[in-house]
Amino acid sequence: MSTQYNVIGTRPIRHDGADKVTGRALYGADIQLAGLLHGAILRSPHAHARIKRIDTSKAEALAGVKAVATAADLPESGEKIVDLGEGATPLSYIRGNVLASGKALYRGHAIAGVAATSQHIAEEAAGLIEVEYEVLPCALTAPDAMRDGAPILHEDLHTKEFGETTGKVSNVADHFRFQIGNAEQGFEEADLIVEREFHTATVHQGYIEPQNATVLWNNDGRVQVWTSTQGSFAVRDTTACILDLPVAQVKVTPMEIGGGFGGKIPVYLEPVAAVLSKKSGRPVKIVMSRKDVFEGTGPTPGSFIRVKIGAKRDGTFTAAQGYLAYEAGAYPGAMVGPGAMCVFAAYDIPNVTVDGFDVVVNKPSTAAYRAPGATNAAFATETVVDEIAEKLGIDPVDLRLKNAAKEGTKRADGPKYRRIGCVEVLEAIKASAHYNAPLGGPNRGRGVGIGFWFNAGLPSSCTISVNADGSVNLVEGSTDIGGTRTSIAMQAAEVLGITAEQVHPSVVDTDSVGFTGVTGGSRTTFATGWAAYEAAQDVMRQMKERAAKLWETDASEVKAEGGVFSANGKRMTFAELAARIGETGGPIVGRGAVNPRGVGGSFSGVIADVEVDPETGKTQIVRFTSIQDVGKAIHPAYVEGQMQGGSVQGIGWALNEEYYMDESGTMRNSSLLDYRMPTTLDLPMIETIIVEVPNPGHPFGVRGVGEANIVPPPGAIANAIYRAAGVRLRTLPMKPSTVMEAIWAK
Amino acid sequence: MSTQYNVIGTRPIRHDGADKVTGRALYGADIQLAGLLHGAILRSPHAHARIKRIDTSKAEALAGVKAVATAADLPESGEKIVDLGEGATPLSYIRGNVLASGKALYRGHAIAGVAATSQHIAEEAAGLIEVEYEVLPCALTAPDAMRDGAPILHEDLHTKEFGETTGKVSNVADHFRFQIGNAEQGFEEADLIVEREFHTATVHQGYIEPQNATVLWNNDGRVQVWTSTQGSFAVRDTTACILDLPVAQVKVTPMEIGGGFGGKIPVYLEPVAAVLSKKSGRPVKIVMSRKDVFEGTGPTPGSFIRVKIGAKRDGTFTAAQGYLAYEAGAYPGAMVGPGAMCVFAAYDIPNVTVDGFDVVVNKPSTAAYRAPGATNAAFATETVVDEIAEKLGIDPVDLRLKNAAKEGTKRADGPKYRRIGCVEVLEAIKASAHYNAPLGGPNRGRGVGIGFWFNAGLPSSCTISVNADGSVNLVEGSTDIGGTRTSIAMQAAEVLGITAEQVHPSVVDTDSVGFTGVTGGSRTTFATGWAAYEAAQDVMRQMKERAAKLWETDASEVKAEGGVFSANGKRMTFAELAARIGETGGPIVGRGAVNPRGVGGSFSGVIADVEVDPETGKTQIVRFTSIQDVGKAIHPAYVEGQMQGGSVQGIGWALNEEYYMDESGTMRNSSLLDYRMPTTLDLPMIETIIVEVPNPGHPFGVRGVGEANIVPPPGAIANAIYRAAGVRLRTLPMKPSTVMEAIWAK
Repeated sequence: MSTQYNVIGTRPIRHDGADKVTGRALYGADIQLAGLLHGAILRSPHAHARIKRIDTSKAEALAGVKAVATAADLPESGEKIVDLGEGATPLSYIRGNVLASGKALYRGHAIAGVAATSQHIAEEAAGLIEVEYEVLPCALTAPDAMRDGAPILHEDLHTKEFGETTGKVSNVADHFRFQIGNAEQGFEEADLIVEREFHTATVHQGYIEPQNATVLWNNDGRVQVWTSTQGSFAVRDTTACILDLPVAQVKVTPMEIGGGFGGKIPVYLEPVAAVLSKKSGRPVKIVMSRKDVFEGTGPTPGSFIRVKIGAKRDGTFTAAQGYLAYEAGAYPGAMVGPGAMCVFAAYDIPNVTVDGFDVVVNKPSTAAYRAPGATNAAFATETVVDEIAEKLGIDPVDLRLKNAAKEGTKRADGPKYRRIGCVEVLEAIKASAHYNAPLGGPNRGRGVGIGFWFNAGLPSSCTISVNADGSVNLVEGSTDIGGTRTSIAMQAAEVLGITAEQVHPSVVDTDSVGFTGVTGGSRTTFATGWAAYEAAQDVMRQMKERAAKLWETDASEVKAEGGVFSANGKRMTFAELAARIGETGGPIVGRGAVNPRGVGGSFSGVIADVEVDPETGKTQIVRFTSIQDVGKAIHPAYVEGQMQGGSVQGIGWALNEEYYMDESGTMRNSSLLDYRMPTTLDLPMIETIIVEVPNPGHPFGVRGVGEANIVPPPGAIANAIYRAAGVRLRTLPMKPSTVMEAIWAK
Repeated sequence: MSTQYNVIGTRPIRHDGADKVTGRALYGADIQLAGLLHGAILRSPHAHARIKRIDTSKAEALAGVKAVATAADLPESGEKIVDLGEGATPLSYIRGNVLASGKALYRGHAIAGVAATSQHIAEEAAGLIEVEYEVLPCALTAPDAMRDGAPILHEDLHTKEFGETTGKVSNVADHFRFQIGNAEQGFEEADLIVEREFHTATVHQGYIEPQNATVLWNNDGRVQVWTSTQGSFAVRDTTACILDLPVAQVKVTPMEIGGGFGGKIPVYLEPVAAVLSKKSGRPVKIVMSRKDVFEGTGPTPGSFIRVKIGAKRDGTFTAAQGYLAYEAGAYPGAMVGPGAMCVFAAYDIPNVTVDGFDVVVNKPSTAAYRAPGATNAAFATETVVDEIAEKLGIDPVDLRLKNAAKEGTKRADGPKYRRIGCVEVLEAIKASAHYNAPLGGPNRGRGVGIGFWFNAGLPSSCTISVNADGSVNLVEGSTDIGGTRTSIAMQAAEVLGITAEQVHPSVVDTDSVGFTGVTGGSRTTFATGWAAYEAAQDVMRQMKERAAKLWETDASEVKAEGGVFSANGKRMTFAELAARIGETGGPIVGRGAVNPRGVGGSFSGVIADVEVDPETGKTQIVRFTSIQDVGKAIHPAYVEGQMQGGSVQGIGWALNEEYYMDESGTMRNSSLLDYRMPTTLDLPMIETIIVEVPNPGHPFGVRGVGEANIVPPPGAIANAIYRAAGVRLRTLPMKPSTVMEAIWAK
């Protein structure tokens, strides 16, 4: 496969590497502007409380304070429904999460913002704002919030059932069902049925860099934003929407980003900083503390899941049923939908019913986290599948292979797969050195698991201009989290027949590039890469015209291969022709703008070896392999990095991470010391096996790699723990105390 | 004419207006980078000296000094000839002007650069550099440098004569001749011949903001430059050339610019700051003092000119002869060429000979200044024409009208005019209220003059992307000196059928837009406006396709007029369609890249009323009208502003401004207090008359407006002084002492 391409599949140094390792890269907090004010946010100390009165007068009177903002300073949202790329949502929810209006719905909910001449004054002033609360009882988990008599978060939230809004006011924002075949009948055909219940904790993406926003509401009415975000256009459109401005009145300059994983898509600080800037006439910067990040930004949902699978004696799955109740956090969420779509997505099962419940609870409004919703669901499915394999005496990989989704498999939520790589991933597991190696010690067990993520399309735009030295400049709107400057540049280079280093990529502000969706959904290398491909094709068309002009022939006669143009026995390299574009008509600029349809889903697998300390219940990962079908690995090193990163996050989710909350809804571990993410000391080297089943819907076969890899780890680790310690765990995280309690119970 | 367009011809507020009046706009000196060092330049105290030794050890030893650079730190230029857009030039000249090598050729010539932790330390360290000079005699004017036995600046400079390099070593870099018809014969046919000699002083552009450059030689080998410049790509290419790097290894971010007028095209500080950054590993900022600007940057040439014109009794010009010796400054220059092309460009004369001499002298290397070379030449021609009018008893405007250049007129240097507006300008003078008004007082006189400037083409690139709110973002590479963000945006708006305010223009760095030539040669509204026109057309093609998709018809069926798309009775505004591009295929990005051929020259005229104080010789401008054919005035207020600005600069040049040098070549007035530019107190309101003879070579008829207006003022004022005080002055500036001496001599 490597002979097919010159650039794709190689491992050039990333274009932003030097800046990032030398500290030259500018992150959100690095921006400095003349007259800059510093902001602080006052947050609710209660998980659920009516706001009876806010008195900002003492804060305003403090020397150095230039502006105070509350929800009253934001334009009224009314009944407005907006679609900012994630489906129709009442604007009041988005606005309400930015600054609480009427009620505080979680501890950490933003109540007011202050801008002052220093950070310390801003924080002191925030403390001087007097808020009179009427504290209300809270509901902290989905089952809790769904029970009769639960405290109601939104008095105007009418439950949607199967697509219809009902008259019922409850914490269930949405109850939907996906169905294929007849599950009841399918279960009747089964020789074995396993049904289990699962609980997963709320976990956070845990990016290093806290949220930040600097805003200048300029005298000409334009609002300029500098922020670390996964989507500069998403920030632009959301901020404009909340401020009731035309989208292009907001200009967003994306700074470098210190991790996002889905959590840096929503807008938290920008509208507050904007209002403070408008009031003060000066630019305002707000940077969250780690506590703010944990308490005030969107983690991924905790969930309650029930999964039931029926199988014949030979292992054939006859039916599956899922019940997924996901915590939305304070406002209706979007995570249970993909969870329900993914829960059985790796399997070809004729009869499936999935019920999804989107449940509001008194926790921070949830946000995407790497394959959002799918990890919770796969934890349930993969442990049930493991139990079936055990009960039927079939190798767990063979059982999965027998039931694996393939081209033509129809999912319960509707779509039928095109060419996919689920079987290839399972075969790679089976053929791997790891799967065939001995465990090498006592108290050890090996588990496997697989998972699926759709990947996304969404619009992307690029332009490419040709330099006289034979290099090109590539302009893109995708903020670069994981090396996409390079993976996009490489696709352009491949088309142009030049090297990756000869492409100079720039991630620019929203005024300087066409609309581009978020860096999320594993879409950037796929979609923005495609836009770069199109822009490069546009360049090549023009380059051929120039060669034709020089050679006095027709452009259709000019061939281009491997960076060499030729016609009628004449040859010219890309660089030679680039040096002559001035004389043949002037600059060459290519454009590419796409909204691709050919998204290809990605399957991933995990082999996890664990050792469980029978004395403490501590689980040590001994060996870990991540396998993923990425379609085509544009830059294998970054693909491996994504697989390793997703694996580590999946391991943390499996074993350690959780919002540890008391009954008042207060998070008790809101620091990186207490919120225990895996460090290098906790982990072996994560091994990777790249599977390449090209996506027929992309010019280079790209599927996307950022997400599917986080899906299987918890299930695979639970299966490994079972084999090591004899206990089946159905609650995340599988921390030492949970393991010990299970061992003792056994 | 205004009914033809919706946007063109209106006067919207400029897009960068708010930032500029509130101080938010960031100029070169405003850039701040982490670890920034400050630089200082050591300059030669001698106008001509051999550099025998440079000892930088004491400077390097000073605490806080991080790097010192001399010419030895620049790559050797060898015999390399480069073309950076102004014709073939030995690289050694460009390099030598940046840091002197072997010889200092003018007082102020850069010898070494220092980077230190503060500006004060850098300056102190520059003073510690020991340079051993062998002082040489100097030549300060063209006649001086041309005489036998004159000190030779470049021992290797072989005079080029009529296109051929001779064996002669002299200070005349180039002697060329333009010829049409037979001048000798033409003079024989004349009834009257007037021949006069003229001297004009060296003058400076006098921009408010001094030159500056901040450079980071990054760890990845890329050189990043922030600077105030008329051409970011010119800085990129010149800096790369001097540093012997591929052009795209240099990235230039153009900061806002506080005036340029041609003087901010050459590169002075960038390569020095680059070398200092490379040596120190840190970014280095250098900002010139006003003295540095006067002594170290390029003024416009002083000149010696002889003009001879023959006319018949009826006023018909039969022949003209010009001898133009222009000071190039320390290195061969490019200003006498255009001077010689323009000297008789306003007239249709069958027999013309022009000799041009490019003469190196011990003054700063000259740079462009608003219609470079033409003002000196027109001063000579216009006063001779005035004398002929007087002698023949013909109204000076009528005499000019009789001989005015028109479509089909052939210039001595070759080209034949397409449609031009010389006659229209003269008719506008004649019809003006000013020309027909009484003088209103004693000691007053009225003079007229006309002038010509070619205007330039050169490559430009733009991209335009469509926002969902119906606005568009326009990306351009032309630094905005005089409101071109708006004049370019208006051309895009006209094509798109939206308002100027709905276009958001951004001037971006050299990595983020296609190649774009300098903002100079009055080309920006012409050429970059054309690129924007093309990009907008590209957008419209795609918008029509989208409308066709929505309406299920063919794109060729879709009409667009005044911002409304229609087909088969269906209608949709630009904004309505823009809101639906997501659903019809994704983002829309348009591109435009041009290298236009249809440049249209601009003629201008001046009516100047002066009052000469017979006691002091001081000339007061009493009334002043500038008339110019601009082709089409895109934004009439900015056109008027350009005409007023050029007039004021022409007035300064005429009456006050000069490099006042002692015989050692030291400028004695190198401050804005002593170098006397006109202030508002010296001037009446400058009246303007816009003439619009559309340029057939541009989609909207644009010619360009920035330069031709500076050409006629000195001649017109000299003619007015003659009428007020009875003395014909042939030396610039016509300062009080010069006027008094002439009066006394009479």
